[in-house]
Amino acid sequence: MSLINKEIGDFTVQAFRNGEFKTVTKADVLGKWALFFFYPADFTFVCPTELEELAENYDAFKAEGCEVYSVSCDTHFVHKAWHDESERISKVTYPMLADPAHVLAEDFEVLIPADGLAERGAFIVDPDGKIQVYEVTAGGIGRNAEELLRLVQAAKFVREHGDQVCPAKWQPGAETLKPSLDLVGQL
Amino acid sequence: MSLINKEIGDFTVQAFRNGEFKTVTKADVLGKWALFFFYPADFTFVCPTELEELAENYDAFKAEGCEVYSVSCDTHFVHKAWHDESERISKVTYPMLADPAHVLAEDFEVLIPADGLAERGAFIVDPDGKIQVYEVTAGGIGRNAEELLRLVQAAKFVREHGDQVCPAKWQPGAETLKPSLDLVGQL
Amino acid sequence: MSLINKEIGDFTVQAFRNGEFKTVTKADVLGKWALFFFYPADFTFVCPTELEELAENYDAFKAEGCEVYSVSCDTHFVHKAWHDESERISKVTYPMLADPAHVLAEDFEVLIPADGLAERGAFIVDPDGKIQVYEVTAGGIGRNAEELLRLVQAAKFVREHGDQVCPAKWQPGAETLKPSLDLVGQL
Amino acid sequence: MSLINKEIGDFTVQAFRNGEFKTVTKADVLGKWALFFFYPADFTFVCPTELEELAENYDAFKAEGCEVYSVSCDTHFVHKAWHDESERISKVTYPMLADPAHVLAEDFEVLIPADGLAERGAFIVDPDGKIQVYEVTAGGIGRNAEELLRLVQAAKFVREHGDQVCPAKWQPGAETLKPSLDLVGQL
Amino acid sequence: MSLINKEIGDFTVQAFRNGEFKTVTKADVLGKWALFFFYPADFTFVCPTELEELAENYDAFKAEGCEVYSVSCDTHFVHKAWHDESERISKVTYPMLADPAHVLAEDFEVLIPADGLAERGAFIVDPDGKIQVYEVTAGGIGRNAEELLRLVQAAKFVREHGDQVCPAKWQPGAETLKPSLDLVGQL
Amino acid sequence: MSLINKEIGDFTVQAFRNGEFKTVTKADVLGKWALFFFYPADFTFVCPTELEELAENYDAFKAEGCEVYSVSCDTHFVHKAWHDESERISKVTYPMLADPAHVLAEDFEVLIPADGLAERGAFIVDPDGKIQVYEVTAGGIGRNAEELLRLVQAAKFVREHGDQVCPAKWQPGAETLKPSLDLVGQL
Amino acid sequence: MSLINKEIGDFTVQAFRNGEFKTVTKADVLGKWALFFFYPADFTFVCPTELEELAENYDAFKAEGCEVYSVSCDTHFVHKAWHDESERISKVTYPMLADPAHVLAEDFEVLIPADGLAERGAFIVDPDGKIQVYEVTAGGIGRNAEELLRLVQAAKFVREHGDQVCPAKWQPGAETLKPSLDLVGQL
Amino acid sequence: MSLINKEIGDFTVQAFRNGEFKTVTKADVLGKWALFFFYPADFTFVCPTELEELAENYDAFKAEGCEVYSVSCDTHFVHKAWHDESERISKVTYPMLADPAHVLAEDFEVLIPADGLAERGAFIVDPDGKIQVYEVTAGGIGRNAEELLRLVQAAKFVREHGDQVCPAKWQPGAETLKPSLDLVGQL
Amino acid sequence: MSLINKEIGDFTVQAFRNGEFKTVTKADVLGKWALFFFYPADFTFVCPTELEELAENYDAFKAEGCEVYSVSCDTHFVHKAWHDESERISKVTYPMLADPAHVLAEDFEVLIPADGLAERGAFIVDPDGKIQVYEVTAGGIGRNAEELLRLVQAAKFVREHGDQVCPAKWQPGAETLKPSLDLVGQL
Amino acid sequence: MSLINKEIGDFTVQAFRNGEFKTVTKADVLGKWALFFFYPADFTFVCPTELEELAENYDAFKAEGCEVYSVSCDTHFVHKAWHDESERISKVTYPMLADPAHVLAEDFEVLIPADGLAERGAFIVDPDGKIQVYEVTAGGIGRNAEELLRLVQAAKFVREHGDQVCPAKWQPGAETLKPSLDLVGQL
Repeated sequence: MSLINKEIGDFTVQAFRNGEFKTVTKADVLGKWALFFFYPADFTFVCPTELEELAENYDAFKAEGCEVYSVSCDTHFVHKAWHDESERISKVTYPMLADPAHVLAEDFEVLIPADGLAERGAFIVDPDGKIQVYEVTAGGIGRNAEELLRLVQAAKFVREHGDQVCPAKWQPGAETLKPSLDLVGQL
Repeated sequence: MSLINKEIGDFTVQAFRNGEFKTVTKADVLGKWALFFFYPADFTFVCPTELEELAENYDAFKAEGCEVYSVSCDTHFVHKAWHDESERISKVTYPMLADPAHVLAEDFEVLIPADGLAERGAFIVDPDGKIQVYEVTAGGIGRNAEELLRLVQAAKFVREHGDQVCPAKWQPGAETLKPSLDLVGQL
Repeated sequence: MSLINKEIGDFTVQAFRNGEFKTVTKADVLGKWALFFFYPADFTFVCPTELEELAENYDAFKAEGCEVYSVSCDTHFVHKAWHDESERISKVTYPMLADPAHVLAEDFEVLIPADGLAERGAFIVDPDGKIQVYEVTAGGIGRNAEELLRLVQAAKFVREHGDQVCPAKWQPGAETLKPSLDLVGQL
Repeated sequence: MSLINKEIGDFTVQAFRNGEFKTVTKADVLGKWALFFFYPADFTFVCPTELEELAENYDAFKAEGCEVYSVSCDTHFVHKAWHDESERISKVTYPMLADPAHVLAEDFEVLIPADGLAERGAFIVDPDGKIQVYEVTAGGIGRNAEELLRLVQAAKFVREHGDQVCPAKWQPGAETLKPSLDLVGQL
Repeated sequence: MSLINKEIGDFTVQAFRNGEFKTVTKADVLGKWALFFFYPADFTFVCPTELEELAENYDAFKAEGCEVYSVSCDTHFVHKAWHDESERISKVTYPMLADPAHVLAEDFEVLIPADGLAERGAFIVDPDGKIQVYEVTAGGIGRNAEELLRLVQAAKFVREHGDQVCPAKWQPGAETLKPSLDLVGQL
Repeated sequence: MSLINKEIGDFTVQAFRNGEFKTVTKADVLGKWALFFFYPADFTFVCPTELEELAENYDAFKAEGCEVYSVSCDTHFVHKAWHDESERISKVTYPMLADPAHVLAEDFEVLIPADGLAERGAFIVDPDGKIQVYEVTAGGIGRNAEELLRLVQAAKFVREHGDQVCPAKWQPGAETLKPSLDLVGQL
Repeated sequence: MSLINKEIGDFTVQAFRNGEFKTVTKADVLGKWALFFFYPADFTFVCPTELEELAENYDAFKAEGCEVYSVSCDTHFVHKAWHDESERISKVTYPMLADPAHVLAEDFEVLIPADGLAERGAFIVDPDGKIQVYEVTAGGIGRNAEELLRLVQAAKFVREHGDQVCPAKWQPGAETLKPSLDLVGQL
Repeated sequence: MSLINKEIGDFTVQAFRNGEFKTVTKADVLGKWALFFFYPADFTFVCPTELEELAENYDAFKAEGCEVYSVSCDTHFVHKAWHDESERISKVTYPMLADPAHVLAEDFEVLIPADGLAERGAFIVDPDGKIQVYEVTAGGIGRNAEELLRLVQAAKFVREHGDQVCPAKWQPGAETLKPSLDLVGQL
Repeated sequence: MSLINKEIGDFTVQAFRNGEFKTVTKADVLGKWALFFFYPADFTFVCPTELEELAENYDAFKAEGCEVYSVSCDTHFVHKAWHDESERISKVTYPMLADPAHVLAEDFEVLIPADGLAERGAFIVDPDGKIQVYEVTAGGIGRNAEELLRLVQAAKFVREHGDQVCPAKWQPGAETLKPSLDLVGQL
Repeated sequence: MSLINKEIGDFTVQAFRNGEFKTVTKADVLGKWALFFFYPADFTFVCPTELEELAENYDAFKAEGCEVYSVSCDTHFVHKAWHDESERISKVTYPMLADPAHVLAEDFEVLIPADGLAERGAFIVDPDGKIQVYEVTAGGIGRNAEELLRLVQAAKFVREHGDQVCPAKWQPGAETLKPSLDLVGQL
């Protein structure tokens, strides 16, 4: 079975954000849209370009009411150190979750057990804590924050307009479809 | 665990393509890149727009040496009937796989058991039959063929240039990264 | 053990009938006689002749108070498309049940797991939901709607006249038998 | 799963035929078509009418190269006694198999364990010993030997003409169908 | 362990007696002595001589307050037919129990599973439903009704005179023994 | 299942006979007929009358080529002591088997576990070591050596004349039956 | 683990004593000291000398408030017969327990299963039914009643004088030891 | 089952003897008679009197070819210290085995698990390593070395004179018994 | 998992202290700091130097409110004997626990099962009975009581000053650290 | 059981040392002494003081032929970043092992599963890969590199001088002990 509509599990992790350490739990996530953005490791190579691109689009996600959480299996101490040192990462203002106990990586099924690292997995979670979209790419393949934003928008639209669906490559403002018996075979 | 690097299982299914029925097996897939594009059901709504967009990008996928396979749990008889009847679907020239026994949907973990239908899952499979990228979206959310094409290109680049990786939103021709110890903390 | 007197299981499926989609459950079946008529797949060959013959006898079944349900593992979208396109199938006015999740095919033990299709099985179910007669034929062998009608009539007669039974080839109006000790060895 | 294409199990039973007792085994059955015709018990009521009708059609079955075997859970001694005493049964010239150990009734899944009797089940078995058609009716409902003959004919036709199938209610000489891609949606 | 003092199990069987069919259960047996007299099959050879001899001694058994039940795995229909046809069996006035479901034959441990027939077993059951004497002989060896009668008499005597026992070959009226310490080593 | 045709198990026991102790094993039993005559205990009450009656008939058993073995759970020391002391037992010249380890009593299924004693069971064993007849009576009921002799004779006759069987109460010299199809229903 | 302080199990056995049969149970044993004296078999060789010696010391045991029970796997009938016949055994006035069901021999772990006999085991049981001393010797080795008496006396002394213990070879009247820290290393 | 004839298990322990530490194994024990003499603990109270008495009888045991081994769960270091300090123990010249790992105490079934100490158990082991006699006494009850010597002598006699047995309280030179059929009931 | 923060199990052992035997249980340990100091065996070589050094530092441990318990698998009798005899051990005034049943050695995971001895393990247990520090060294390697004292002091400091930690080689009075976000990367 | 003499498991981890990344496996460890020094996390507080102290003593460890390996569950990328940034850590020249997959932390039993971090555990491993000494302290308690050095020296001495052991607090050059029987009780 897929992870679509799977409710995320309970968790309690440490996070680094805006110069502070704080605890983040499932309860903090519920009630709004969320993007969980897993990457293998701090102080590596593809990851900072992805996190930077995400930081640059963070306002757009927030405008959609969607919080962004980056997650790796490093500790919050390491997140802070990286944020201090890297120019790209210093742009990050969303919470950076620390998962050294592999709780989140196992719950979202992206842990690589032999390495103790997470795959590059992006998960769009609805306000009920249920996964609506996910994408996973092998080690060296960077993701696309704008496409993730488009998918958040589509997911929101479908949730809000129960009787309409978003065709391929739909963007906000574009035409949608209203499923009906008459459309069968007409599309 | 994720499905990244999982080798796809053996299968033998019926397909409709270019006015003919043919048998497709795992052996037909190995040796080149492949996109498995699951959708819930023939004669429904989001699906034809996705399949049409994919048909319009089919040449670009072929240019990358990547075969495209659409898959639903309908029979090949139904695929032919839909192709005959729907203007959008009549543009499809890639193989349409029939999975009424749910073999592929279970192997790629997109079967919805209560419905007997597949989630909208797209899987980029390398020439060794191993999954490199996948994306799954809930029922009403259409995918983006151009983004899938970009991911095929990135996956190919990483496979061919073992010492380089693709940063976020990378497109062919853009700069890549060559991981090295000196880059640690410099990105 | 045979399936005689087995009570059918709970089910909830989509159906196409008279230009509409509707949900059909076990509760809809109880309280009158029913014929469940399984066939392998829409848009195939023997099946439309069988469904057409059944459509032509539908009034006779209804006259006996017996509802007719055709069932295949296709979706209700496909049933509608077939009904739209095929002249023979367009005559069908009984509910066409969609069983892509294989719930009915497994309950009546006609699923061919390797194919995800149903055998040609006809089941006469009494108002208590219990199977009284069934017939299954291999793939290419068409059934006989008139013989099924005769069996519905005989089953009804036996249910209504607890002290009489129907001899071979009995038709309504023909003589029946009343079992008694005196008849032992006299027939 | 259905019993279609199930190979019958090994068996060794006593039979009564033409005034003699003989042993019948699976080996005797293989190599030609066979009809196994189960009924509840000797010296009862519906059964003799069914066996008599079958006896009257026996020449037609033989003309198709199809042997007929009646089967009940009575002993061969009882078969002989019934044959001696009953006018209807005295017409029987096909082998009457005795199954007091319930071997055949269990293999064909028609045993009623609480009664130690068989349901009224008719099974058409091909020359490889595999079931191609079967029909089971509740206690008091007599079967129709002519319809069984038609099904034997259709089953033979399908076996001999691998590329053709028999539509509903087909009889020898009537038109058959040759499945092809062009027929999809045209029937 | 032996079957001595084993309480017989619950059962419900059909019986033929004096031109009627009736149901016999364990409740009918309790409260008086009973002889269960198993034999392999109706319409065979040793059996009618045994049943005839038993019929001729039936009054003596009844005089002892002991009911006689013959049992085979044939149906009650067959019992009636045999009674109608055989001169010896026509003398039988005790109930002939029908055990096609093998319930009694298994409870008394005389079923021959490969044949579906009962061994020649005679069981004397006391008014509490507990077995006090039993005798089983291989297929072709006839029993002796008079010896069974003697054993019923001895069993009754022991039950009624708790302080006395019956020596070898004891017959009613003969001397019995009263166990006591003084007799130890004196017999 | 019954014990008819069950082959007796291996055993090695001590016996007392004619003033000597000797070991008796299964090998000593095979090759001729044997009567195993179990009784509860030495120095008790019914037993000596049974053993005495058996001793008086011992020549007749030997004339039939049938060895007699009495068996109780007492030791051979006790058998000797009883033989020394009891007038009745002093007549015994057949082997008295000692079964304090309960090996024989368990193999013939006559052990009363709570008492550590054997039921009164008589078993006629053929030259292949297979049980052909057995009789078990509750504690106080003495058996009949002459009837056991008759059963040995009948069992021998059936073994030697494979095509004939012994009717009820048959004695040597009396008429036997030759089963044949013509006799069905004629007895 | 050893049997020391193991509480003996429930039992109900027959016994012979002073010309009478009586039932002995665990309840009869509790409340005073007891010696259970197992031996292999009545009417054998070492055993009577042991039982005789025990009989000669019986008064001394009784003077200590200790009952003596001899036990073998023979029946009480055999005990009586032996008592009648043997001069040595005729001196026995303590209860001779009969254990043909092996209940005591198994509870005290002296059964030889292959023989159905008991080892020569002597067990001193305190008034709470718990074993305080035991001795077991192989088949041909006779025990020493006087040593057993000494052990009963020592066991009683220890029970009654909780603060003193009996050194090696202690006899009533001899010096005992009072364990104390000052004695450590001084003995 | 008893421990009679049980072969002792493999073991390797440290021992103290005559001012030296040495390893003792099962191989050292085989080939001559042995007395294993368990006691609870060094530096306690009853034990030194028992070990001293045994030391005083050691020559007599050696004269019988029987080695003596004392055993407690203390270490060999402690055995030496006790031997150094205690006047009684300083007389010991037989090997004092150390069993802190509880190997011997478990093999001879005298371990008290809650205490980690051994019961007072004495075991006479024959040259094949099989136990022939054993005696176990509760905590405060001292044993009798002379009685153990008598039992060694009796066990040797029985092993050497296979046809004779030792009656109760037998001592070397006293009369023995030769079991024979004629003695049955005469002792 | 490590033993850090594991709560010690229940135990009841005998101890020797100041010329007396007493019982020590878990309840005696709770409420203050404790050092459990395991060593292999009394009367051996490294052990007395360790116990002596510990005795010389005992006042310092007590000054910290920390009780000291030495533990070996010897009995308390042996502890007393060693204390009496050894000059070094005679200095010991802390409780010497006796663990012949291996309860403590197993709970602290220092038992060497093949030897029945304890490894040299030192465990600092807090007033809640939870282990805070432990050190284990192979057989011949002596420990350092002063380092253990330093660790007790550090453990106490951390427990009492929840917001400060002790850097490497910390001693009372030396500087500690107060973890804070600002210190990340600054140490 | 303790970890003393446990052979470390196979492992393959990434390490940072002297400005380079390298792979370290069990094979690299075998053949010389090793100190595995676990700590919770990079960029934290106690840890750098411990690692710095260890760095300052590294030459002394190397002089003993003992390699030092620090280990945390952070990645090698993080080790490099910390080494770049922290003045204390920049002094480290021994290999810093990265264990994000928790392989080493589980093998040495110091993983805190709920945190994904290691306890402060130091392990001295001999050239055969077997643990000889270990010490574990709770979170905030720093260790003492000089004491660890002393323990390495003692462990080496014991390995090299099989007949001598190191008393408490031994330092190279100090007196050792040679265990002998004469020393028992003299220390």
